[in-house]
Amino acid sequence: MDMKVTIIGAGNLATRVAVELHRKGVEICQVYSRTEASASMLAAKIGCPFVTRTELISDEAGLFIVAVNDKVLAELLPKINFSNKLVAHTAGSIDMDVLACCSANYGVFYPLQTFSKTREVDFQNIPICIEANTPENLQVLSTLANTVSTDVRVIDSQQRKSLHVAAVFACNFVNHMYAIASELVQKYGVPFDILKPLISETAEKVNELLPRDAQTGPAVRNDQNVIGFHMNMIDDPKWRELYRLISESIYKYQSGNEN
Amino acid sequence: MDMKVTIIGAGNLATRVAVELHRKGVEICQVYSRTEASASMLAAKIGCPFVTRTELISDEAGLFIVAVNDKVLAELLPKINFSNKLVAHTAGSIDMDVLACCSANYGVFYPLQTFSKTREVDFQNIPICIEANTPENLQVLSTLANTVSTDVRVIDSQQRKSLHVAAVFACNFVNHMYAIASELVQKYGVPFDILKPLISETAEKVNELLPRDAQTGPAVRNDQNVIGFHMNMIDDPKWRELYRLISESIYKYQSGNEN
Repeated sequence: MDMKVTIIGAGNLATRVAVELHRKGVEICQVYSRTEASASMLAAKIGCPFVTRTELISDEAGLFIVAVNDKVLAELLPKINFSNKLVAHTAGSIDMDVLACCSANYGVFYPLQTFSKTREVDFQNIPICIEANTPENLQVLSTLANTVSTDVRVIDSQQRKSLHVAAVFACNFVNHMYAIASELVQKYGVPFDILKPLISETAEKVNELLPRDAQTGPAVRNDQNVIGFHMNMIDDPKWRELYRLISESIYKYQSGNEN
Repeated sequence: MDMKVTIIGAGNLATRVAVELHRKGVEICQVYSRTEASASMLAAKIGCPFVTRTELISDEAGLFIVAVNDKVLAELLPKINFSNKLVAHTAGSIDMDVLACCSANYGVFYPLQTFSKTREVDFQNIPICIEANTPENLQVLSTLANTVSTDVRVIDSQQRKSLHVAAVFACNFVNHMYAIASELVQKYGVPFDILKPLISETAEKVNELLPRDAQTGPAVRNDQNVIGFHMNMIDDPKWRELYRLISESIYKYQSGNEN
């Protein structure tokens, strides 16, 4: 891809995207972050200049990828002169049209994955959800997305928002279930690693079965003996309440009494 | 292992354990289930006789593995003459001592994994939690467990119960989070498979990081904008309530305000 790209932001997501584009030969011409430490660290990784003041952002790029916190996005956009170049944000829950104020050409480049500072992720398999205000802009984002991933999908703003909520359940909430499980076993001197094969198998199962068909455990059988017994073993009242509510939700969902 | 084994029960767990022991050369001499269809199906898989009446259970075996529902276990035990042979149950939440009534030799053989009818599982990596009333009986169960798994652990009844509760969070509740996620995206015409890389990565992450260190998302940042926005997108009031409670629990846990 011939187009030069400027990266606005230097957090987890901005860093992973910039480094991956660079690795695949896309020219990153500038990095902006208001925090000098972050800006310089990312710029060093990909060997490009950085700026920390919006008025120094060059319009040399053909595409600006804005990967900043949702809160920062609205404040930041009016301060940048994009010269009507293509501008794409990376946010799950923000309408594409929020960019209409700052350029005639805009879209979304949303990689559906969880990124940590300390862990490399294979970009190839990450679904990249794209959307744009014109077919030409969609084509540009599609070409770019295809340089880093084999799974590029056109997803509108409403679908993307539903994906973001779903991702909170499938990732953030799942991780919290792991956290609670780790505390429950460690309390009795059992190391968390004993749960790892179960965690892997539970995740792998849904590659073959729909979650509805993969459900096991006392809740789906409505086994009140075990449920009551388990609740008595949970000291924390919030976690006990979670046990009760999730068990109820499983039983209702699986027995088809609602949803 | 020279000892003959009788399998009491023919459900998911009984079947997986019996088939795996048989595959590793352990002699299964009899299968019991009150349901003829289940008993005959399992017996056919491993080429051994079956019975459907407790009085026909032979005392030829040196070890009886009782893999039946928690509810059935208490009713069933007094009906069987174990001739003081070694008897082990496979239940997560039941004390080993429940077996003291029916034999002088008893223990627990608890594979920590989720078993489905339609999916093969690699037994090698499944942690098998064993416990017994004497060192000699523990040795027998250890030898047996080592024939099918490389991860055999001595776990007492209290630890095993905590593991069972933890497994409900790490497996059953996690699967329900996947189910909710699948419904949320399918409502907007997005196929569930788009979430699979995220689900895999979330599970793989905890091989490297503690769940506490792997947590991401709006709840840990206490981002009330996104949280409110997401809750408005969830039609089902129970799921909305789950979203709220799990988010609160994440924030409190991660910020160290409790636990």
